[in-house]
Amino acid sequence: MLNKKRLLTPGPTPLPEEVRLALAQDMIHHRKSRFKEIMQRVQGHLRELFGTTQPVLPLSCSGSGAMTAAVYNLFAPGEKVLVAEAGKFGERWVEIARSRGLECTVLSAPWGRAVKAGDVAAALDADPDIRGVLIQMSETSTGVLHPVREVAAVTRTRNVLCVVDGISGVSLSPCPMDQWGVDCLVTGSQKGLMLPPGLALLALSARAWDKAEKTGTGCFYFDLCRERDNVLKNQTRFTTPVNLIVGLDVSLKMLLAGGLDAVYRKQWALTLFTRAAVRAMGLELLAPENFAWGITSVLLPEGVDGNEVLRLAAEKHGVYMAGGQDQLKGRIVRIGHMGWVDWADVAAGLYALDRSIVDAGGYIGARNYLEQGLAVYRAALDVAPGTPVSCPAVR
Amino acid sequence: MLNKKRLLTPGPTPLPEEVRLALAQDMIHHRKSRFKEIMQRVQGHLRELFGTTQPVLPLSCSGSGAMTAAVYNLFAPGEKVLVAEAGKFGERWVEIARSRGLECTVLSAPWGRAVKAGDVAAALDADPDIRGVLIQMSETSTGVLHPVREVAAVTRTRNVLCVVDGISGVSLSPCPMDQWGVDCLVTGSQKGLMLPPGLALLALSARAWDKAEKTGTGCFYFDLCRERDNVLKNQTRFTTPVNLIVGLDVSLKMLLAGGLDAVYRKQWALTLFTRAAVRAMGLELLAPENFAWGITSVLLPEGVDGNEVLRLAAEKHGVYMAGGQDQLKGRIVRIGHMGWVDWADVAAGLYALDRSIVDAGGYIGARNYLEQGLAVYRAALDVAPGTPVSCPAVR
Repeated sequence: MLNKKRLLTPGPTPLPEEVRLALAQDMIHHRKSRFKEIMQRVQGHLRELFGTTQPVLPLSCSGSGAMTAAVYNLFAPGEKVLVAEAGKFGERWVEIARSRGLECTVLSAPWGRAVKAGDVAAALDADPDIRGVLIQMSETSTGVLHPVREVAAVTRTRNVLCVVDGISGVSLSPCPMDQWGVDCLVTGSQKGLMLPPGLALLALSARAWDKAEKTGTGCFYFDLCRERDNVLKNQTRFTTPVNLIVGLDVSLKMLLAGGLDAVYRKQWALTLFTRAAVRAMGLELLAPENFAWGITSVLLPEGVDGNEVLRLAAEKHGVYMAGGQDQLKGRIVRIGHMGWVDWADVAAGLYALDRSIVDAGGYIGARNYLEQGLAVYRAALDVAPGTPVSCPAVR
Repeated sequence: MLNKKRLLTPGPTPLPEEVRLALAQDMIHHRKSRFKEIMQRVQGHLRELFGTTQPVLPLSCSGSGAMTAAVYNLFAPGEKVLVAEAGKFGERWVEIARSRGLECTVLSAPWGRAVKAGDVAAALDADPDIRGVLIQMSETSTGVLHPVREVAAVTRTRNVLCVVDGISGVSLSPCPMDQWGVDCLVTGSQKGLMLPPGLALLALSARAWDKAEKTGTGCFYFDLCRERDNVLKNQTRFTTPVNLIVGLDVSLKMLLAGGLDAVYRKQWALTLFTRAAVRAMGLELLAPENFAWGITSVLLPEGVDGNEVLRLAAEKHGVYMAGGQDQLKGRIVRIGHMGWVDWADVAAGLYALDRSIVDAGGYIGARNYLEQGLAVYRAALDVAPGTPVSCPAVR
């Protein structure tokens, strides 16, 4: 009774009441006119969100399903791709590409750092047979934001498709597909879109559609050309997760009501808040620069067990955060501040982190990290999203 | 305001209030203990429902995704399978099998009829290289129940896997996997399970697991062996549709509260009710025998347009039913009576069918089809599910 439960994981994320009530509505049939009207409205809003005039396909699968669909439809066995890898989801691109029989060149950066667009360009110059670059917008396992805009500028002038995993990126920071020249953008319902998991979204550029039409698909379930034929009629090829589409209709209206700039502004401000407060605590950030706008990875002090910190934060403070994966297991805490999360939720997360590190035997020196963080938050709300703010003096 | 909306389609189906409230709950994280507890309980209930000691895997996809997963994991390119086809979903097995590079022998029956187990046996005898039989439990496009028990009796003594699409069958009529010797059973959330679409369920027999381990998978997203490793730890490989799992926990409790026999008894009685009333109206049933327990296909009188009947039923009576597909387009109405549907909903559907046929220019002679149907319904509730009842005199 003391604490509410607060979900500060990098997906799934909390659900707004409006969305929850929509999810609870009785079922409607996916082949009837009422559903088609919803699909049409959702389609318009999704194109605005993705920044594209192309259809955005809803797929009944997790984000990894949409990543599979992208690779299997865009590249035929034997083709070469370059994977920009700096975390667990970069590795997933490699796994998927190899399962399709692709030749895979891996351009790695240390976990916590972003790949460099210049290195991508050099790799493409070194091997002109490469037909695609697979990259994350936000690498969820580290909290790094890869330079998708710069990478797309490299690929768009070449016969190379830029395929972007935007699962923990879309609706958290900008990725206007058409303007940047991104060829494929995928996302999932359970991050910035403020929905339960179970729905993935995928869009292709005109040249990616040309490639998909020639390539065929390696998996019956993921046939993007047939999906597109249906979406253009406000339908889906198979039975779609109807209540998630109904919920998406509501969440997109909420997101777009104040314009996308307001969405990104909030995400930017929450991110700077979190980072400033963590630094004020005397803790290190895993991603010193090139950081995602929906997740902050905090390096724990030497000797403090990450699993114990997570357990204490959940049990004593009701705050659910995520730990590190693979090489980062036990060493970091990942704070999700995506979607239906506001500054007070983040403050609760920061306080829970502080207290749980202390209870786990660590040392936290700072006493006014919340005030310092909130000063940055206020300043960040007044600048264009993405603009650095210097840490104002706390009044 | 005159009529409530009633969804009598063969999936998606109406949602109980208990399920809808569960779907509306705020998100929980799929890697935390609270979710694992739910998964564990759900897993026990699913095994009871499927009649198996093997794990039942929840997959984030539509039913067709689970059909794809079954074929891709159980058979390697070049292997031979027999498809028992008597409708649109039989044809889907063929499409999926061919997309996997399988050699496909198609044993067809007319749409509206069931395939015969004897014909399956003869086909297997004629070609001993066949390694699998793909069949529907209930063919949703026609409302036919195929003889899965008898087909499994044929396959279990041979080196042939019996792969069953139970999407509109499971939890509507019995298919105890282990007892019958079914090697693979798949279903979807949006039929008898009284949930929105977006979650598929799949179980394999011990010998099917052996085959899957040797076969590998043709699609990264559908790797049943890796899914099983996760399910045995009350986890899923990828992010699962969390709120559907939470809803499934509730719907399984509802279904199993009175025992599976009570579920099948209700479905049997609703089916006999519908069939008796339709006959009393002077209409023909598409499936004269071997009928599914969750859907009834009604042949429309000559000259009556099925699309018009569906439109009138929806607009004037609030009843949503389904039409025919492909060769049956415009010629039949499919009444779904699956899951969260009771006799009064069915009565509303029958009345809407009667009035809409008349309004579309057809003739309905009978005046007491509801009373006749309900007399059969009452009688059917008193016998073991599946036992024929003679039409009692209406008092």
